Amino acid sequence: MGKKHTSSYEVAYYDGDFTGAMKIPALLAVVIKVSEEQTELLGRDAAYVAQFGLGWVITNYEIEIHRLPKVGEKVAITTQAMSYNKYFCYRNFWVHDEEGKECVFVKSTFVLMDQKNRKISSVLPEIIAPFDSEKITKIYRHEKIEKVTEGNFLPYRVRFFDIDGNQHVNNAIYFNWLLDVLGYDFLTTHQPKKILVKFDKEVEYGQEVESHYEIVEQENQLKTRHEIRIDGQTYCEANIDWTN
Amino acid sequence: MGKKHTSSYEVAYYDGDFTGAMKIPALLAVVIKVSEEQTELLGRDAAYVAQFGLGWVITNYEIEIHRLPKVGEKVAITTQAMSYNKYFCYRNFWVHDEEGKECVFVKSTFVLMDQKNRKISSVLPEIIAPFDSEKITKIYRHEKIEKVTEGNFLPYRVRFFDIDGNQHVNNAIYFNWLLDVLGYDFLTTHQPKKILVKFDKEVEYGQEVESHYEIVEQENQLKTRHEIRIDGQTYCEANIDWTN
Repeated sequence: MGKKHTSSYEVAYYDGDFTGAMKIPALLAVVIKVSEEQTELLGRDAAYVAQFGLGWVITNYEIEIHRLPKVGEKVAITTQAMSYNKYFCYRNFWVHDEEGKECVFVKSTFVLMDQKNRKISSVLPEIIAPFDSEKITKIYRHEKIEKVTEGNFLPYRVRFFDIDGNQHVNNAIYFNWLLDVLGYDFLTTHQPKKILVKFDKEVEYGQEVESHYEIVEQENQLKTRHEIRIDGQTYCEANIDWTN
Repeated sequence: MGKKHTSSYEVAYYDGDFTGAMKIPALLAVVIKVSEEQTELLGRDAAYVAQFGLGWVITNYEIEIHRLPKVGEKVAITTQAMSYNKYFCYRNFWVHDEEGKECVFVKSTFVLMDQKNRKISSVLPEIIAPFDSEKITKIYRHEKIEKVTEGNFLPYRVRFFDIDGNQHVNNAIYFNWLLDVLGYDFLTTHQPKKILVKFDKEVEYGQEVESHYEIVEQENQLKTRHEIRIDGQTYCEANIDWTN
């Protein structure tokens, strides 16, 4: 099992939504920062990876939310590179509150992408070695994401500030598009408890996405299905389980 | 002169724009957090102010930018309540880099607003006393903001996550609307050096704003004029001076 790295974070007023709960986009942004910190500590930051013409891209998240931290709370964020195979690197994150209780657990899959041809590269030993994660042959099968069968959508233009210092639409922005369509009444009366997300294609500056969604109830579980589309093509898919 | 409070902040990857410079919306969000910290330290946080049925609202910013901090930089943010008169409180902010050089200087005006009738309240001695700021009779005249005479606009829907834990459209979001309209080519080749902003009315969730803008050149100074409008009414005005 790979090395762990923990950082503390105090939830700022601007991280909080209407209800004072930490926004999912803010949560993911902060969580990813902790893995960036670990890559720096181990001498494998974005600049090191870029020497090989590569960059990290996240393909999947499985997020379990026991409760969202509140504005003003101090949380501990821990990350660990778990294992990797030829193409995929598996990394976990935990968010704990001050009493040591787990608030959020995230499984994620990262790939190395060739910055020129935008194709997935095999995992290079030089890049991965210092993390001490386990080499495996198995490919982890993420939980199946159900497609939107019928539903509504809202359009979202990619804005200049949606692009971060890595010249990509920040992963957190997808969650803004995915969730915003559900609207005030839904979002102030429901909490997400499980989020599955798959990133299929990279959205670029200047594009306009459609955030499709559908609200369903399955076996007493309120669920939303999501799809980010451009010109009928799927860029991102998600399923969210909700509690009232 | 009032008490000073300083906090350090490391610019995160998600605070950076395309070029790795700190986004103006992120800069303002972090700067305001430091004044919130001071109100907490002095026992005059939002909950204390809410006892009187009041809340702080920012009406003006004058921002001087020598250079925008970069992702990964550690900056020191200082705030000081300078002075106040019957209705207006004047607060300054400074952002310094690790060598102690000033990167950004901000003058701001705050008012206390009645949470029920949304009218400006006179400044209560109980609320302001611990800051040791100077009582003055003069009303500070902010630099005049030139109106948009003719120009283009883009529409922006207020999104759920634009509302912060204070139940308002976060001030920083206005800067997102104001700047985004200028587009990639402009924003990656120009840096703001001076920003004047006036907030006239509060935008609410569910509204759609028009971000109007006009690019002009005056005495060799490239300048943009901005106006946030809803149904022909002005909600926010700004002028920005740019360097190439």
